[in-house]
Amino acid sequence: MKIHDIAGFANPLRVRIALAEKGLLDQVEFVPVDVMGGEHRKPAFLAKNPSGTVPVLELDDGTFLSECTAITEYLDHAHGEKTLTGRTALERGIIHMLQRKVEAGFLNAVGAYFHHATDGLGPVLETYQNQDWGRHQREIALKTLVWMDGLLEEHDYLAGDQFTVVDITAMAGFAFASAAGIAIPDDLTRLTAWHQRVTARPSLARAV
Amino acid sequence: MKIHDIAGFANPLRVRIALAEKGLLDQVEFVPVDVMGGEHRKPAFLAKNPSGTVPVLELDDGTFLSECTAITEYLDHAHGEKTLTGRTALERGIIHMLQRKVEAGFLNAVGAYFHHATDGLGPVLETYQNQDWGRHQREIALKTLVWMDGLLEEHDYLAGDQFTVVDITAMAGFAFASAAGIAIPDDLTRLTAWHQRVTARPSLARAV
Repeated sequence: MKIHDIAGFANPLRVRIALAEKGLLDQVEFVPVDVMGGEHRKPAFLAKNPSGTVPVLELDDGTFLSECTAITEYLDHAHGEKTLTGRTALERGIIHMLQRKVEAGFLNAVGAYFHHATDGLGPVLETYQNQDWGRHQREIALKTLVWMDGLLEEHDYLAGDQFTVVDITAMAGFAFASAAGIAIPDDLTRLTAWHQRVTARPSLARAV
Repeated sequence: MKIHDIAGFANPLRVRIALAEKGLLDQVEFVPVDVMGGEHRKPAFLAKNPSGTVPVLELDDGTFLSECTAITEYLDHAHGEKTLTGRTALERGIIHMLQRKVEAGFLNAVGAYFHHATDGLGPVLETYQNQDWGRHQREIALKTLVWMDGLLEEHDYLAGDQFTVVDITAMAGFAFASAAGIAIPDDLTRLTAWHQRVTARPSLARAV
């Protein structure tokens, strides 16, 4: 299988961590997409993913899968035990719920701040900016961090005692936050400890 | 189990259709939430769902599940064959991907237009409005409809030959679009036929 993406960006990192956690990195050919040159907005790439976003998974039969959580869903079902998205109905419901809340309230909120209220990827690529929206989303991101810290009161990971796709989404959010100049507030000590714990996982080093 | 929601709103409709498709409506007690009175923003409700959104599923053991697709994921796994979210790894990946694209590009885009660029739910509940963001999202919704029409070129439903959660998300989008004054453009004939086909399903009548 192939992954069309770009190293060092937040959303590609999500699928790279998932691949590393599943032990699949050596089964993948990475095809670089020139995002800074706008390749993801051109017809050849839009035929792979009409949303114009990276990463995209290309299967050996030519099927293209986009959207990070959809790619993770596929990988977790196609390769061994379901370690990232939950085994039972209830585990799957809770993990799906928390992934969405971390994604909408943190990763995507930080992304909106970066793209709308900072220079983002520069004037050529940022064709629509809305400063007020970006600043509003930054406030949402900061509130979500407080809620995430609370999730860690009784567990080592955001969805419980196991590392899941929820932690992956949060790590991508922190990669984006770092680029956007947003740090974990000092009083969120559980979140700081979680960040150190997850950063130390072998998959994180392999995924970069 | 209980569903905390309000009749006639787009997101509650999603879970009601899922329940009807799974044959579970008679196993649910519906608990009305006074959204127009702001009940969903008060501490008692935020303890059930910190995002302050309806619907919320309350299981018999007291567990609360929020986020429509998470509730649907749970219901589809806990009750019989997986008819709404896919059976194989590839089906699950494709359905997950399309659900997200229809949700972000259509349902949530129409929702953003409604809440930000119209009166929405009125001045008491619409505490942050961003007109320009709302109008921008309306354009995204209209482009997404063209893409959705294309999905129907070879199949009766948005993810293929079977009705899935992707069709549910789209139907909720059209319920919202109707309230926001957005209709299916006349030239999107496949989408119009799809809308009639889905509207005729027994689950749609039962879900209201």
